[in-house]
Amino acid sequence: MSKWERFLSRETSLLKTSEIRDLLKLTEGKNVISLAGGLPDPSTFPSEDIKNITDYVLQNFSSRALQYSATAGIPELRESLVNLSNKRGIMNINNENIFVTVGSQEALFILFNILVDPKDHVFVEMPSYLAALNILRSRTPTFHGIPVTDSGTDLDSLEQQLKRMKEENQKPKLLYIIPTAQNPGGTTLTLDDRKRVLELASEYDFLIIEDDAYGFLVFDGEAPPAIKALDKEGRVIYTGTFSKILAPGMRLGWIVADQEIINEVELFKQNVDLHTPSFTQFIAAEAIKRNVIQNNLPKIRSLYKEKRDVMLKAMEDYFPKTAKWSKPVGGMFVFAWASEKIDTLQLLSKALNSGVAYVPGSSFFYDYSGRNTMRLNFSFPNREQLERGIKILGQLIKE
Amino acid sequence: MSKWERFLSRETSLLKTSEIRDLLKLTEGKNVISLAGGLPDPSTFPSEDIKNITDYVLQNFSSRALQYSATAGIPELRESLVNLSNKRGIMNINNENIFVTVGSQEALFILFNILVDPKDHVFVEMPSYLAALNILRSRTPTFHGIPVTDSGTDLDSLEQQLKRMKEENQKPKLLYIIPTAQNPGGTTLTLDDRKRVLELASEYDFLIIEDDAYGFLVFDGEAPPAIKALDKEGRVIYTGTFSKILAPGMRLGWIVADQEIINEVELFKQNVDLHTPSFTQFIAAEAIKRNVIQNNLPKIRSLYKEKRDVMLKAMEDYFPKTAKWSKPVGGMFVFAWASEKIDTLQLLSKALNSGVAYVPGSSFFYDYSGRNTMRLNFSFPNREQLERGIKILGQLIKE
Repeated sequence: MSKWERFLSRETSLLKTSEIRDLLKLTEGKNVISLAGGLPDPSTFPSEDIKNITDYVLQNFSSRALQYSATAGIPELRESLVNLSNKRGIMNINNENIFVTVGSQEALFILFNILVDPKDHVFVEMPSYLAALNILRSRTPTFHGIPVTDSGTDLDSLEQQLKRMKEENQKPKLLYIIPTAQNPGGTTLTLDDRKRVLELASEYDFLIIEDDAYGFLVFDGEAPPAIKALDKEGRVIYTGTFSKILAPGMRLGWIVADQEIINEVELFKQNVDLHTPSFTQFIAAEAIKRNVIQNNLPKIRSLYKEKRDVMLKAMEDYFPKTAKWSKPVGGMFVFAWASEKIDTLQLLSKALNSGVAYVPGSSFFYDYSGRNTMRLNFSFPNREQLERGIKILGQLIKE
Repeated sequence: MSKWERFLSRETSLLKTSEIRDLLKLTEGKNVISLAGGLPDPSTFPSEDIKNITDYVLQNFSSRALQYSATAGIPELRESLVNLSNKRGIMNINNENIFVTVGSQEALFILFNILVDPKDHVFVEMPSYLAALNILRSRTPTFHGIPVTDSGTDLDSLEQQLKRMKEENQKPKLLYIIPTAQNPGGTTLTLDDRKRVLELASEYDFLIIEDDAYGFLVFDGEAPPAIKALDKEGRVIYTGTFSKILAPGMRLGWIVADQEIINEVELFKQNVDLHTPSFTQFIAAEAIKRNVIQNNLPKIRSLYKEKRDVMLKAMEDYFPKTAKWSKPVGGMFVFAWASEKIDTLQLLSKALNSGVAYVPGSSFFYDYSGRNTMRLNFSFPNREQLERGIKILGQLIKE
């Protein structure tokens, strides 16, 4: 930026293009195995069902599906989402607790904007979801990290920090947490841990933003209920997404929250984009109503489970014994901790030259620590790529 | 808000639910003729074409149309928009100058966020587009108004204010302007006026945000070229929308700007919602490629021209001689100035009781002045409703 730089608002300077993004962009179109992305396998998209549903929607609701609609979402989708939420254990809600957004990214953008002031005390996992951290950074809060290791999320650390803050008369504002098949750390909180997080929120009086992006994508056993399912005070704000269970190209997500919070979200969203596209909302509502999403889930889960197992097996075979990695029960990622000597950011250019891409883990730490970590995606590459990619990477780390 | 109020960020308190919105909500479902909305006539939606295109897209591009895509928009749509921009006189641009958004509302949201700091000097028309003013208000700038009357936009006033600001060593940041079939004022700048605005921007060094929502909806004669078409310095940032020319339920808009600005928009949009839905972008790209939009425009224009004429004729017949109103060459609204004694906000509840709704004009003034004005929509109601609505309103004003 040079010619028009003097016209930019102050906060615009907080937005930085990521060097990793630029590095990965260079590999586009080249013959590189990408374990870097976060894309669903396109074979999981129910294209034929979507085609039938779209025809039906345009046949029967075109004057509404193509028209402006309410900021909070069309009633049909809000109602369908009440039903879908039930499957995550969230009961006793109605349409007024549901708010439809342009992907769960917009849900997080609006929530962090209406809730977080500069210097507010915000808890995040280390590592946590990159794009959520970026929005939070733009709000310039005071970050507090909760360590995630290959043996789980450290809730003792959360409690100790809360105690210390209380002694210092500091008030926590919120905890942003991905309790199920965490991206990228791979952890899943037990039912007891979920209850404990809620008790801490109540005792120390903070909000929980529960990002349930992978709640429907648990392949080993049953997913524990959402934290929101256990919430009696309305303290949990839940975000969900259609990107992993229908199609990310629809850009649809949703919030489940206390009605008072929903009202504030609505006022903010009016400024952002008036409302989420009516057209895609009608399609999603019908996809839930016809059980297209529910019936597709077993297929997605078994495909990703198989791919995860290919990746984990390859890591056992090719990664050095000094490395550790998550064994996620669901989701799309494995997270690896190499030995402390290794800088995964430096390793990336070598890896790209050898034909494999990944995301260095430091991007997922609010303080850019975790320089010996990396995130590996198993949902998009095919089995052969997974195996070969991990083999190359293992050799590089060993060197 | 009470239970969770203490958790809200400071700027959230800037967002107020509008009393007018609440008032109009009360009429929903009741037998009220609404001249208040801003909805296109649904008979203008090319549903059958959209159905054919959607089938084609899902048949041929489903793995891309349902997948994540680039933040700036899919290449196919950016290219189609280069071609569509040519029809507004905007030449010498390429894909890199185009950015796709969730309606032009999101375009304005992002632009005002990346450009406007608190206290920045911002020029707006009086009246101007309500939703744009709301975003601007959230940025807490110093507003400067350019009067719009039934005889046009007062560029002399703009120039005088710029001179005075210069004498006082104040720097203008930007002008937000809707130069063609202005919403709600009804003005359209002549070619000479467009050149003059550009010269002033260059001389006094500010940016122009040109909102061209109605550029394709001029029914009387040819629309003048966009200001962006005359822009040699890259000083004009143009926003367009599919809401008036295809279907608002798609929520698609776009920006045409210098590539440096586009890059900053991209960084901000990554935080907001990652990208605009791929699915609807493929549909819109194909709708331009197949000339669906271009071929549909004459039908929309002649329908709205006829409706405008019904409204203007009814106003001649039923409005008092003391009232003045715009004679817009396009768009969807007539703006009326009643005599100074009349408060259109007070009049609204009477009007609603008599079965007709409109938007009191003060909402369209950054300083909530213009209390004797009202905005009247002619695109959505049918001819009979237009005539009856205006008749009732005329009688109320006369009383």
